[in-house]
Amino acid sequence: MTSPHPVSTLDLALERERSAQPLYQQLYQRIRDAILAGRLPPGTRLPATRVLAADLAVSRGTVDQAYSQLLAEGFLLSRAAAGTVVNPALDPKRFGQHRPLHPAASPGAAAGSATSSMPLPFQLGLPALDAFPRKLWTRLAGQRARSLSQVALSYPSPVGYLPLRQAIAHHLALFRGIDCSVEQVFVTSGFQGGLGLAMQTLLRTGDAVWMEDPGYFRARKALQLNGATLHPVPVDQHGLRVEDGIRRCPDAKLVYCTPSHHAPLGVTLTLPRRLELLAWAAQRGAWIVEDDYDGEFRYDGPPLPALQSLDSAERVIYVGSFSKTLFPGLRLGYLVVPPGLVERFAQAADLFAPSPSLLDQATAADFLQQGHFARHIKRMRALYAERRAALVAALETECGGRLRIDQHAVGLQLVGWLAEGEDDQAIAARLWAQGLAGQMLSTFCLNGGQPPALLFSFANVPVEQAPALARRVKAALDGL
Amino acid sequence: MTSPHPVSTLDLALERERSAQPLYQQLYQRIRDAILAGRLPPGTRLPATRVLAADLAVSRGTVDQAYSQLLAEGFLLSRAAAGTVVNPALDPKRFGQHRPLHPAASPGAAAGSATSSMPLPFQLGLPALDAFPRKLWTRLAGQRARSLSQVALSYPSPVGYLPLRQAIAHHLALFRGIDCSVEQVFVTSGFQGGLGLAMQTLLRTGDAVWMEDPGYFRARKALQLNGATLHPVPVDQHGLRVEDGIRRCPDAKLVYCTPSHHAPLGVTLTLPRRLELLAWAAQRGAWIVEDDYDGEFRYDGPPLPALQSLDSAERVIYVGSFSKTLFPGLRLGYLVVPPGLVERFAQAADLFAPSPSLLDQATAADFLQQGHFARHIKRMRALYAERRAALVAALETECGGRLRIDQHAVGLQLVGWLAEGEDDQAIAARLWAQGLAGQMLSTFCLNGGQPPALLFSFANVPVEQAPALARRVKAALDGL
Repeated sequence: MTSPHPVSTLDLALERERSAQPLYQQLYQRIRDAILAGRLPPGTRLPATRVLAADLAVSRGTVDQAYSQLLAEGFLLSRAAAGTVVNPALDPKRFGQHRPLHPAASPGAAAGSATSSMPLPFQLGLPALDAFPRKLWTRLAGQRARSLSQVALSYPSPVGYLPLRQAIAHHLALFRGIDCSVEQVFVTSGFQGGLGLAMQTLLRTGDAVWMEDPGYFRARKALQLNGATLHPVPVDQHGLRVEDGIRRCPDAKLVYCTPSHHAPLGVTLTLPRRLELLAWAAQRGAWIVEDDYDGEFRYDGPPLPALQSLDSAERVIYVGSFSKTLFPGLRLGYLVVPPGLVERFAQAADLFAPSPSLLDQATAADFLQQGHFARHIKRMRALYAERRAALVAALETECGGRLRIDQHAVGLQLVGWLAEGEDDQAIAARLWAQGLAGQMLSTFCLNGGQPPALLFSFANVPVEQAPALARRVKAALDGL
Repeated sequence: MTSPHPVSTLDLALERERSAQPLYQQLYQRIRDAILAGRLPPGTRLPATRVLAADLAVSRGTVDQAYSQLLAEGFLLSRAAAGTVVNPALDPKRFGQHRPLHPAASPGAAAGSATSSMPLPFQLGLPALDAFPRKLWTRLAGQRARSLSQVALSYPSPVGYLPLRQAIAHHLALFRGIDCSVEQVFVTSGFQGGLGLAMQTLLRTGDAVWMEDPGYFRARKALQLNGATLHPVPVDQHGLRVEDGIRRCPDAKLVYCTPSHHAPLGVTLTLPRRLELLAWAAQRGAWIVEDDYDGEFRYDGPPLPALQSLDSAERVIYVGSFSKTLFPGLRLGYLVVPPGLVERFAQAADLFAPSPSLLDQATAADFLQQGHFARHIKRMRALYAERRAALVAALETECGGRLRIDQHAVGLQLVGWLAEGEDDQAIAARLWAQGLAGQMLSTFCLNGGQPPALLFSFANVPVEQAPALARRVKAALDGL
């Protein structure tokens, strides 16, 4: 007689009623906790998907999704003959007082919370992960890995792999109207790495900084953690209220802003405001950090040129990222800095924040140079336009009376305005209880003053799922 | 009649007499400059190695080496049928006022200057690039690239890929006597990324910092650029003079030190000094950044445990790197932080310095978990012991009267003391003029006070080349 499978002795029973999480996430969490607590020792073979699905009376897809997340995070390993096993290299004795790596889904932990898992519906900060050409990327990465030369083992240039910088400059000229030399382009560890390098180069502890209000809260937190003194500047339908900024804090050292597509309202900074901002920065010697997130995804006509393209006084530091145009796991971003700052940024990059692994940079350079990038963006723009239209239509059909959808034709998210006095927090909590990652606008606010609203990303919402998801939003609005 | 090959119209003539650089480097530089200046337009086919070697009357190896460096940096592309061509994606019009990416070899630009090229003899900061198991690494990276899942496309954990953190904790327990939970381990962008994260988390502009004198000048520059106020603390044969530090700056916020193997003198911080340092830090609430570079490479008996292993008051931030134990191009390092700092470091990592690309982290985790890492270190320790012995013997034979070799049995470099009054700068300049990257000790000094000395890495000096290189050192000493 064989002893019972260790998994069968665990309490994997999933909550179907009033559940806080989708089934696959519950299963993921239970297996993960069992591994961390030592109840599933390293090397333990897990039941086949089919078997566990039958045991738990769930679909095979549910088990597949849970296993695939655990595989991606390294808790499980796939072994041809032995099936799926608990990673033998994990030693639970060394986990110490383990805190959860993935805090339970909650409205606060959302937008861009940087942990690896299957995207939740409406989750902000992600591209359509189902639509990325993984096979093509893998082929390019494999070619690059095979040709790893002895020279390539050495330190890559701290400012970035030259052909990638060249390809970025070319892309920015075409898509964002930016005219720069390749020397002004720095390859960074994603948006965070770029912002970090800019802060470390330009700011001293206590320096005054204008922060859009509402504004991207991860940028706000980064600036705060870096010791900046934040001065919230309100945003209206024309974008950042530059006049208010000048009145409140005329001698700011730096401005963080999202001119092409405000985070999260989606409004565009108008030309008069752009010129006002640039003139003030030129006069006061302030720096403008232009976060141009999602600028490639515009659905009605050509994208607006970046603020940087208007900057004749060399005040703008342009921050871009491949997290949405390629994929976030790549951790690649870029800066374009004024010619006069190239030397200082190069020194800081060399000493604090050297450009990432050559293999990824070279693979990305190949992807751009061979034309796959332009094709991918074009295809994604069409896909996002479809997904956006489907979600707008579904939300208007189901929730039209309660939710006014703002249709800014850029980016990967929608703003849904609630009536004054609606309880955004309670609604968001009910969304998250259903596994829907709708985000409160108030998370982005410093001083408040905005009516209640919710943010929804459509990037990972396939057209056919929009109506059902909109009905679940309606249920959350109705307090069900 | 075919038109002459564009390369043949260039001035590629190499200097054989009194040359500042080896032939392959001259050739590399001339082709590179021609590309940047637009004299070799994108897409231009280069002559076959054999043909160019014959034209220039150099060996095929010389041309191969130059081409291989240009290929690795992306100036050239290898195309099966068409041979080697100038990268068609490079647009010389966009290079702007191009400054050299690789400043001409010079004594000042040396140690750890982070640019990609074939290692020069004696160059500090590199492992033996010829001895890295590239094929094995490539196979592991290829496997990982092929299994890139949808989940793996999403944001990796900002603190690092769990199995890699686990493997690092295991390695540090075995090799460095460090007992830590996996939560204390952060995966960083090499040493620089780790130091950057520590500085950004722990220091405010103007904070007082003890800096070893002499000391690792890249760490010194990073601290200065970060706004720290540096207080040089002398180093003697027992390591950092803790007593002097306490007298000169009792309320420092942070100490940067290299206890296991001082950079660059190689001395070990003695136990009494370690306890003195830890007691002072505990009492004053100061942080100690332990840079444990090259701690794995010790040639007489077991490695000393890290300072961190003695730290009961949670003051030590341990900084390690895979740049020497694997390869620098990987840009992977790690921190071990006290349990009480885990939360702050995790937040800072998430906002400024997220862990690098999942693909590299996962490949490194496989390399460690499958035992290749321990085998590689063992093999490298034997190889370095041989290379070290050969270079010591050759330098003593050739230069014994002029250079006293310090034989600290750890790390990848030797200190060669010159007699008082010798002109280290002139000697170093003559070494560099021969393409030898011997480094002046004075580059590492803040307040001076050290006799003149030169530093030589043996990592990339094959045993059979040691005598000839030592003769070239002798020539430089003799003013030839």
